[in-house]
Amino acid sequence: MTQIRFRDPQIDMAHGAGGKASRRLIEGLIAPVLGGSLLEALGDAAFIEAGGARLAFTADSFVVKPLRFPGGSIGDLAVNGTVNDLAVSGAKPVALLVTLILEAGLSTEVLETELRAIAAAAANAGVSIVGGDTKVVEHGAADRMYITTAGMGLADSRVRCSAAAVRPGDRILLSGPIGDHGITILLARGEIELEADLCSDTRSVYPMVEALISSIGDGVKWMRDPTRGGVASALNELAADARVCIAVSEETIPVRDEVRGACELLGLEPMHIANEGQFLAVVARDRADQALDAVRSMPGGEGAVLIGEVRETPARTVLSLSAYGGTRVVDMLVGDPLPRIC
Amino acid sequence: MTQIRFRDPQIDMAHGAGGKASRRLIEGLIAPVLGGSLLEALGDAAFIEAGGARLAFTADSFVVKPLRFPGGSIGDLAVNGTVNDLAVSGAKPVALLVTLILEAGLSTEVLETELRAIAAAAANAGVSIVGGDTKVVEHGAADRMYITTAGMGLADSRVRCSAAAVRPGDRILLSGPIGDHGITILLARGEIELEADLCSDTRSVYPMVEALISSIGDGVKWMRDPTRGGVASALNELAADARVCIAVSEETIPVRDEVRGACELLGLEPMHIANEGQFLAVVARDRADQALDAVRSMPGGEGAVLIGEVRETPARTVLSLSAYGGTRVVDMLVGDPLPRIC
Repeated sequence: MTQIRFRDPQIDMAHGAGGKASRRLIEGLIAPVLGGSLLEALGDAAFIEAGGARLAFTADSFVVKPLRFPGGSIGDLAVNGTVNDLAVSGAKPVALLVTLILEAGLSTEVLETELRAIAAAAANAGVSIVGGDTKVVEHGAADRMYITTAGMGLADSRVRCSAAAVRPGDRILLSGPIGDHGITILLARGEIELEADLCSDTRSVYPMVEALISSIGDGVKWMRDPTRGGVASALNELAADARVCIAVSEETIPVRDEVRGACELLGLEPMHIANEGQFLAVVARDRADQALDAVRSMPGGEGAVLIGEVRETPARTVLSLSAYGGTRVVDMLVGDPLPRIC
Repeated sequence: MTQIRFRDPQIDMAHGAGGKASRRLIEGLIAPVLGGSLLEALGDAAFIEAGGARLAFTADSFVVKPLRFPGGSIGDLAVNGTVNDLAVSGAKPVALLVTLILEAGLSTEVLETELRAIAAAAANAGVSIVGGDTKVVEHGAADRMYITTAGMGLADSRVRCSAAAVRPGDRILLSGPIGDHGITILLARGEIELEADLCSDTRSVYPMVEALISSIGDGVKWMRDPTRGGVASALNELAADARVCIAVSEETIPVRDEVRGACELLGLEPMHIANEGQFLAVVARDRADQALDAVRSMPGGEGAVLIGEVRETPARTVLSLSAYGGTRVVDMLVGDPLPRIC
């Protein structure tokens, strides 16, 4: 793989947005220096063989602004985000650690509300919170609270997901409507004047993933939760890592009217908007219908769809095909239209 | 155990300092809400039985100020702190995840320097960095960079450390001089005018811990790295958790002149000052000399000493005995004389 060099003199918001700049920072600086393989650094969870077990291990920091928004809060995201990273890596989420960075002056009520959100989300996802850490920084040295969660899961031996398993002909499954989380955050910040009855989709996707794996086993080749950078960035990473073309049918991708409206108003692409309760899967062609049935049978998965297929060429490219015969290249997110989305 | 209620209306710096206020926040709010057992929340690492293996799992956030100081930097601390939490829990450190919260505008040079410090410390401690996450917040919403590390280790089957194993008559071992890290940070901030040739003691204590376990096996009852809140807070937590008295001989505790001088100037107690490369162990009385020899045989452990013993009464108390016959109670750290020490 070509070695990218990170040449930007300073860190900007876009480097945390999950798109091109993030990938450049990780590929060009973080992964080379820290010595992890590129895929490990970019993938959702690392696997470790330890004492006879195959374990998944992942961590994410959460800096969403505002702390609370329709459908959830930073506490929900911090649990579900890490649970989902484990789930889409093909692991059963088992335990979480929660570390807090608190700004001096934060009201105890706000902290307690988020602790309760964390506890409820963990109970709902079936994971235990087994420990953590709390640091406090001066007023002005953080924005109320940041949460980091680390998660441990047990590898599901029925699957071994990786971009390397993806083959031309495989189908792309999406669990439901995209962009709800990102646009909800944007509206919650009051940055656009728009009346919309929209909620974040934050939730554990593990039940849907489990149903999918139970149904088609190693017919599941690859999974990802399209958070920062959206479906477009996740599919572009897949296209690059698997050296394939991902061709999606534009009209099959479910987007709520409120999300589409906000995107049109702002000149954004729904496929670039963050999700917190959806997942993408690459499934074997001959088991795609069975896969779809499995996900649709689960609460929250009723709107699952097959959105496209894997092709050989043009490699490293995501194409969007319209019903009218048009074809356009869908790039990764560039810049950061929606900072601090998770 | 008596249930403590957390009644403070807001979070202050002292709640992150590792002393009484921290314990009150954890015991009175965080542990009850998150549902973890108290010991898990306060201990250094959680143990999980998974797939036939017994694994240790821990996470810490690092917000030290300044980022670099004599003897180390935030990158060193972030690796060694988590490695040490695993080590003193009786686990061999295996893998780390590193998550970064970066302030927009941070120079790439500063980031790269810390990434290199992380990589070097991990190589030195024999752990792999297997993944992580990067978030960026606006200029002014963080103080340059915060790092959270999560660590996974394999339980060492030769020991099973816990406060419950501690018995009257057991001896207390300390690996070396205390207070170097905390006073180094204070001096690096220029908060006191004092010429001192002092370095942080940040390092992995795993080689010393491993030598100790190899030497006396389950003669090791309990271990802790006395970071925030210092030796006094660690021993008070032990006294409370094991419902015993810890009696230490004041004169046996090694304190460098520079640390003692700074403490006298500031009215601080050296036993309240943070360490980043020392550990405390409770060892069986009849194996205490053997334990001491084992730690002293390791690089960095030459100054190890036996500082006291476990007594039945007065329970939940740490006593300091002077050679002249005086006895005083050593309390946990109250307040936060040294914020953002790690």
